[in-house]
Amino acid sequence: MAAANTSVHRAVVEHLVRQSVYQRLGKPLPQTASGPNPLVVNLSARHCHLTQEAVEILFGKGHQLQVHKWLYQEGQFAAKETLTLIGPRSRVISNLRILGPCRTLNQVELSYTDGIALGFELPLRSSGDIKGTLGCMLMGPAGFFEMEQGVIRALRHVHMNPVDADYYGVKPGDFMKLKIGGDCGLSLDRMLCRVDKSFKLEIHIDTDEGNACNLQPNTPCELLK
Amino acid sequence: MAAANTSVHRAVVEHLVRQSVYQRLGKPLPQTASGPNPLVVNLSARHCHLTQEAVEILFGKGHQLQVHKWLYQEGQFAAKETLTLIGPRSRVISNLRILGPCRTLNQVELSYTDGIALGFELPLRSSGDIKGTLGCMLMGPAGFFEMEQGVIRALRHVHMNPVDADYYGVKPGDFMKLKIGGDCGLSLDRMLCRVDKSFKLEIHIDTDEGNACNLQPNTPCELLK
Repeated sequence: MAAANTSVHRAVVEHLVRQSVYQRLGKPLPQTASGPNPLVVNLSARHCHLTQEAVEILFGKGHQLQVHKWLYQEGQFAAKETLTLIGPRSRVISNLRILGPCRTLNQVELSYTDGIALGFELPLRSSGDIKGTLGCMLMGPAGFFEMEQGVIRALRHVHMNPVDADYYGVKPGDFMKLKIGGDCGLSLDRMLCRVDKSFKLEIHIDTDEGNACNLQPNTPCELLK
Repeated sequence: MAAANTSVHRAVVEHLVRQSVYQRLGKPLPQTASGPNPLVVNLSARHCHLTQEAVEILFGKGHQLQVHKWLYQEGQFAAKETLTLIGPRSRVISNLRILGPCRTLNQVELSYTDGIALGFELPLRSSGDIKGTLGCMLMGPAGFFEMEQGVIRALRHVHMNPVDADYYGVKPGDFMKLKIGGDCGLSLDRMLCRVDKSFKLEIHIDTDEGNACNLQPNTPCELLK
């Protein structure tokens, strides 16, 4: 992994500009902008996480995932490599993006719209909690890999640093609400708090949620307890 | 159009049972169940409305749409006929359902997820308000029909009888909010009120909205001002 994320997220720039403008005007920041860190809301398109073992079966012995694009969380990236997923009813999703680095389990995260296209019901799970879920077949250029379980819809969640959790007054496992504005705005309930000191404040919603409200980079968002 | 809707919607049965149980117990109905009519929330999958002229170009001279399934609104039906839609970038959606009876304009209603698959940006419009929107090509067994405009994402809306509008204290063109419960619940803002004395109380949301919250027949829903 070479040079990390060089482009700065719009929300980070806005946060800095807002803080500096209010300070210069000598005014207190509005409640929604006074947090220690900018609120970044990102749309997670369908993707999978793989073990190094699965990567080697799919892409060849010794293969290492290549960085296509760095993500907002430190060290996380969208890989150049994509896969073909074959569902339990033989229906297919092509160009399934792999996120790196490799993990200790294999997991595919799809939207309910994807589940309907594949013809089966996805369980709603927190990432990593895959026991008893359905599996699928993955096809790469070097071979097939049968995932026995791990196909889920990921529960909407917010990554938080302990500093953010303190600011919002929540603890790991709590649920918050995300209010999204715009012409077809909505509020998402049951936004799971995941707290770790390696995390940057970031919300992940899936494509169904993002398309329901037409989430754009400049859509106003507010995280509420 | 022969025999109309013979199956009764679950929400209607629940409404009747609830009213009867509370009456027998001599208790007042809870606020959310005291409306004059049951609140029916239905998911509108992608579909199109056509003029009789377009139907004849696509399916042959004199062709009449056949009823596949009656819908909740009186006289409205999903037709047996489906079409292939070819978007402006030559990408295709197959099995696009036609809703009958025929109208005085041609309109295709897609989700933003569909728009992304087709590779263009859908405008968010109230049904019928299609001026200046993009068109598409429709392909049927008897020919092609070029729609010059009319491909939209329909604004989420509630059909109301004047009695319902009175009960909720709203008028045509107002916006309401729909609170949807469950494991991945949400609240949809900007739910447009459409009022007509021919309407039965019914909310239409699209597949992005329905899949964002995993709307099921037994998911609790509440319409709020």
